[in-house]
Amino acid sequence: MLGARARGGWQALRRCASLPRAQRAVRLRVREALGAREPAGEVKVQGWVRSVRSQKEVLFLHINDGSSLESLQVVADPSLENRDLTFGSAVEVQGKLVKSPHRMQNMELKAETIRVVGPCDTWSFPLKMKERHALEYVRQFPHLRCRNNTLGSLLRIRSEATAAIHSFFQDNGYVHIHTPIITSNDCEGAGELFQIERSNEAREPVEKTHFFDVPAFLTVSGQLHLEVMAGAFTHVFTFGPTFRAENSQSRRHLSEFYMVEAELSFTESLQDIMQVMEDLFKTTTHTVLSKCPHDVELFHKYIAPGRKVTNDRLEQMLKNKFVIISYNEAVEILKQASQTFSFKPEWGCDLQTEHEKYLVKHCGEVPVFVINYPYNLKPFYMRDNEDGPQHTVAAVDLLVSGIGELCGGSLREERLPFLESRLQRLGLTDAYQWYLDLRKFGSVPHGGFGMGFERYLQCILGVDNIKDVIPFPRFSHSCLL
Amino acid sequence: MLGARARGGWQALRRCASLPRAQRAVRLRVREALGAREPAGEVKVQGWVRSVRSQKEVLFLHINDGSSLESLQVVADPSLENRDLTFGSAVEVQGKLVKSPHRMQNMELKAETIRVVGPCDTWSFPLKMKERHALEYVRQFPHLRCRNNTLGSLLRIRSEATAAIHSFFQDNGYVHIHTPIITSNDCEGAGELFQIERSNEAREPVEKTHFFDVPAFLTVSGQLHLEVMAGAFTHVFTFGPTFRAENSQSRRHLSEFYMVEAELSFTESLQDIMQVMEDLFKTTTHTVLSKCPHDVELFHKYIAPGRKVTNDRLEQMLKNKFVIISYNEAVEILKQASQTFSFKPEWGCDLQTEHEKYLVKHCGEVPVFVINYPYNLKPFYMRDNEDGPQHTVAAVDLLVSGIGELCGGSLREERLPFLESRLQRLGLTDAYQWYLDLRKFGSVPHGGFGMGFERYLQCILGVDNIKDVIPFPRFSHSCLL
Repeated sequence: MLGARARGGWQALRRCASLPRAQRAVRLRVREALGAREPAGEVKVQGWVRSVRSQKEVLFLHINDGSSLESLQVVADPSLENRDLTFGSAVEVQGKLVKSPHRMQNMELKAETIRVVGPCDTWSFPLKMKERHALEYVRQFPHLRCRNNTLGSLLRIRSEATAAIHSFFQDNGYVHIHTPIITSNDCEGAGELFQIERSNEAREPVEKTHFFDVPAFLTVSGQLHLEVMAGAFTHVFTFGPTFRAENSQSRRHLSEFYMVEAELSFTESLQDIMQVMEDLFKTTTHTVLSKCPHDVELFHKYIAPGRKVTNDRLEQMLKNKFVIISYNEAVEILKQASQTFSFKPEWGCDLQTEHEKYLVKHCGEVPVFVINYPYNLKPFYMRDNEDGPQHTVAAVDLLVSGIGELCGGSLREERLPFLESRLQRLGLTDAYQWYLDLRKFGSVPHGGFGMGFERYLQCILGVDNIKDVIPFPRFSHSCLL
Repeated sequence: MLGARARGGWQALRRCASLPRAQRAVRLRVREALGAREPAGEVKVQGWVRSVRSQKEVLFLHINDGSSLESLQVVADPSLENRDLTFGSAVEVQGKLVKSPHRMQNMELKAETIRVVGPCDTWSFPLKMKERHALEYVRQFPHLRCRNNTLGSLLRIRSEATAAIHSFFQDNGYVHIHTPIITSNDCEGAGELFQIERSNEAREPVEKTHFFDVPAFLTVSGQLHLEVMAGAFTHVFTFGPTFRAENSQSRRHLSEFYMVEAELSFTESLQDIMQVMEDLFKTTTHTVLSKCPHDVELFHKYIAPGRKVTNDRLEQMLKNKFVIISYNEAVEILKQASQTFSFKPEWGCDLQTEHEKYLVKHCGEVPVFVINYPYNLKPFYMRDNEDGPQHTVAAVDLLVSGIGELCGGSLREERLPFLESRLQRLGLTDAYQWYLDLRKFGSVPHGGFGMGFERYLQCILGVDNIKDVIPFPRFSHSCLL
């Protein structure tokens, strides 16, 4: 479970153990100290005090440095106590790492010296010792909330998931592309966009001078840019920020969120796209569960207890194949449902979150692919299935428990005549001339998908409010940092 | 040299070799085919035609799929030729992988079938067979230029460098943080910012309604947000887009570029920061050189021949320690230089690119750290060295050959009284109340640095124009995609 750094730390420690005492103490992270197999002398641990308990004969501290959810217990002589040694203060403890007599922990640090590096004004510090603060409460302190257990766990999970996603694609031969953040393209011809201009109090009215000569926006998706690259690399992916100017205070939307997007060339079936989606989900989740089981467990136990998500249930889910149903079947299932929906299910209408959640429940809370959506519901670039009378395109959504849509993808229309006539009907021929161009020069069947990273985290952690899976809660319109 | 996917491909191939011929052919990437150790039957390769040479007895093709700079030679019976089989067309070739009789290549594909998946309108295709197009020429075709050798190499290098940077930090125990892109913070109290608002043609004048209640900008640096996180995790990093609204057509600036930033807690010396900068540079470069030597070589040979960068010289550079000089020493060196500068070097003035380049040359074209810059030149958050009469802060810049400044970093001022009085003098106390707050609750000595990712690529590849190391050249103000 220990990373390369941890192993490096221990190698250094072993070397040090045989050296004279005058040697400098080996600096260990809390995670390394907790995971140590054998006692060691002259160790230095730095971090923040999570608890102080002073008894007549002994002083107990718990030190956390963000490397793990668990803190390291420090045992010291009461003479080492000082008035700055409080909850929240930063300390450097030097001493011996010994086997702990307690059942719940492996190692503890027998302190020889304790230095308070940075005291903490406990009275005005908004976090309190051993209190489980509500997420709404800590969201008020964007600059301090990372020192709360829940946010600590979230950020370690986000970091591991990010690394796992990069590794998944690199290991499978995908080329990583930084798709543009500033673009003149709105990808789907819809969506609330953010527009950008140079900040300048004395600047001309927007309509007169554009910084880039044309109006420029923040990207809503890197898909079309990835399609360009899939015309040269066959497998490409991106993982970056995307933006929607939805003026919504909902628990489901953010102005700024992260998307994983992939595009595959020489791909003639939705099956190929679904396989990558399923593999990505399973590989990432497996990695997160094995790298930070306690962090994930904290969410399941305290943040989403009603959702009945557990590490075991997640592991179980990873073992089974995801279900595949067609949009047509989905509508039939919804029509026959005993449940009453706010939006009546009807062929040709978009699936609402209530519908999506029902479908997942109907299939036994297993992730469900819904394929082949109505032609008129979907954007111009999706591949025409040429069927009828219920005309569909080769689109796919992945629905998951508690969330609804997690991923969306499709085969792209690679045939020039189909694309030309569709863009003409939509009056978009001029705007997408470059996209038509791509179909003239060695165009191949291809497809791709996108996965919302925050939705993914909500899914595996059972978190209801999307604002609770981001590092800074600035999107709440009031506490920009 | 082959990745996990390549190995997987070969395992599949081996399994397949012992199965009856009716089995489907094994799909191989060009890189996998070229790197194969032994011949194999029933192989399928997909990609784009880079050359067609039809002789009386034999038809030669070169197929590229973006997995490597080298193309795979296909040898076929002339009867397999067809009029759609042209430069730029997309093909699927099935046949046997055999040892090539040619000295320059390991394997070639003896075709049994050739299917043109997507023909190419060669007349209007702006790239021509076997022509080495100028970068300025291909920059006009942002949607097609990735099928040019140089851009192909660039994007593989970018992808490997990106992966290497993520791995470097993860392996060293850093937590990855997505710092905000949209922020109300301008980080250094200066710099040309992009402002964002909801796009809405009928919207009120900007001053009346802000989407986020306050003016919001695109980030110029994630540093201050990382500092927040370094108060809980000790080692954090980010690697994302940053923005400057500099209305510049220069070869040195982009509106949108990528920054690697790291922040380390419990760090009392610039030496620690410099060590991480040096390790990051060396590890990343080493990985890129070993993963895509031919791609890097292409740049050295054809794009930067005057710069005398070679893979060997880079390898050599990785073996030596970087040089460290103080700002004071740097100014003395510049004053004694025989060269005339546009800006006269003087203590207290910022180092210009011409100065930086001279210093690197003076030190033997080795990367040079310049430390301890004048107090009045640097932003408020840099740590006061409390020296005099030449008052400095603990700042560091890393200068490299041909570029000048590649990285910038500093120790941060962790002492509340110093920070309070400095912010007060600057009239910034209200804006940075949250930053002062951090110093009240377990503040520790810390520091960090940033490295421009595009500058890094320019440095190792010897590319002069920064626009040539990005995937899409949209920032040129005219060809937004």
